[in-house]
Amino acid sequence: MTRVAYLGPEGSFSEEAARQQFADGAEFVGYSDIPAAISALTHKLVDGAVVPIENSIEGSINVTLDHLLHSENSPPIVAELNLPVRHHLVARPGTGLSQIERVVSMPAAVAQCRKFLQEQLPQVQVLAALSTSAGVQSLVHSSNIAAIGNRRAAQLYGMEIVAEDIQDTSDNVTRFIALNHTPAPSTGHDKTSIALILAADRPGTLMAMLAEFANRDINLSKIESRPTRTGMGKYFFLIDLVGHQADPTVAEALAAARAHSDRLMILGSYPVAPPPAIERRPE
Amino acid sequence: MTRVAYLGPEGSFSEEAARQQFADGAEFVGYSDIPAAISALTHKLVDGAVVPIENSIEGSINVTLDHLLHSENSPPIVAELNLPVRHHLVARPGTGLSQIERVVSMPAAVAQCRKFLQEQLPQVQVLAALSTSAGVQSLVHSSNIAAIGNRRAAQLYGMEIVAEDIQDTSDNVTRFIALNHTPAPSTGHDKTSIALILAADRPGTLMAMLAEFANRDINLSKIESRPTRTGMGKYFFLIDLVGHQADPTVAEALAAARAHSDRLMILGSYPVAPPPAIERRPE
Repeated sequence: MTRVAYLGPEGSFSEEAARQQFADGAEFVGYSDIPAAISALTHKLVDGAVVPIENSIEGSINVTLDHLLHSENSPPIVAELNLPVRHHLVARPGTGLSQIERVVSMPAAVAQCRKFLQEQLPQVQVLAALSTSAGVQSLVHSSNIAAIGNRRAAQLYGMEIVAEDIQDTSDNVTRFIALNHTPAPSTGHDKTSIALILAADRPGTLMAMLAEFANRDINLSKIESRPTRTGMGKYFFLIDLVGHQADPTVAEALAAARAHSDRLMILGSYPVAPPPAIERRPE
Repeated sequence: MTRVAYLGPEGSFSEEAARQQFADGAEFVGYSDIPAAISALTHKLVDGAVVPIENSIEGSINVTLDHLLHSENSPPIVAELNLPVRHHLVARPGTGLSQIERVVSMPAAVAQCRKFLQEQLPQVQVLAALSTSAGVQSLVHSSNIAAIGNRRAAQLYGMEIVAEDIQDTSDNVTRFIALNHTPAPSTGHDKTSIALILAADRPGTLMAMLAEFANRDINLSKIESRPTRTGMGKYFFLIDLVGHQADPTVAEALAAARAHSDRLMILGSYPVAPPPAIERRPE
């Protein structure tokens, strides 16, 4: 049976993404943090892993990017999924908004509900959890505390929704990636994620590298930098480009880009995911 | 008297940076979070503000970037400072490592000490604080808890250092920016930070914009993306370039880049800071 690692425990958005990606009869294994979920795949304890990589409000999930950049033998990205995010304020049954003294959740989720918290719970103490579902799960141990999580987590852990849809904006979408042991084949509608360190820090090197794509009409859908951790101002550039690494033009551009780089890693080629439906799905 | 806002309370790295930047007789006012410190300047409650913007291990401080990008009338950046970061594990006097059940600090500081925590305190519960000094300050209220902070915070709040230099790497540097009401004049050794939204999402637009700088021999020291918060895949590009906006060539390149953009903001031109001394300063 296919075993799939996700950022757990049960009831997380990652579990929802994992169940969408691996529809039929897979076994889902929740891990307590993102590096642990990816490492389970690297160590062949599971056959796939699904973790968040980007949120439309808060940007990249750096712990995911950094784990991919700084691990030996990082497994390839084989799919992406966009999930709309609906956050609810969840607490033990019977808890009123005025009783809540502390809120526990993943820092990214707290950040996505900043306005609600400032307006409704200005004095609240914020505690960090490793996932939204871990926050909801932790509520059983104490009172006067709420978590930010989804409806499924509230149900799973016997909690109640105190306030619905507390995210700052309805455009809140999280992008997840699926990782696998084997790269994904070309589908004709793919994107490729790469990371590179430029060979020289002089005017035009970045431009010369990017020109290898532009001159071949390859669109870049994202460019981002992350520290190499070898000193201030030294960056990995993370680039998403349209096309599959097996496409001859993309392969040629990648080879040319490599010539401008000290190091170039292909994180994976995978089908472009549709944006999530604008119509809110009933939960 | 010059009043300077910083990410407080007293004993934070931001306070250290603020005291370096405004050496003589300024009054320093600690704010509980980064947006509050910047807003104090926008509302003319203070004459300057010093906040962290980037760490060499964890990358950009997104709350700072996002506040500059999403505020009306963001004050100009007038200086940058690089401070080496030494994190210590701090607790109430007499607390041993084995007694520590919880660790409280800013998530960025926790991330910078991941290895130490995994190896020495694998079972520890991590709590989020709004600054390292706020974490140290909170220790007075409970036992079996430690904070990650600097020596000055430990001394200020009557705490003891349980473990020294617990950061993952000695290359840990945080870059701070100083904001002011008035832009900084040209010194001949400046950089300029801009943010822009590209006018069109087609092959070559990003390249065409970057070429405006490369063709004028203007080096880009950083390029990064942040969500515009108007949907997945729509980004602000944040670019640091070498030169002052008043330099004729830079001004020309900025005007040309503006033609490729729906929106272009100049966040500030300011002197390039030296890297921090490699020799550790005694604290």
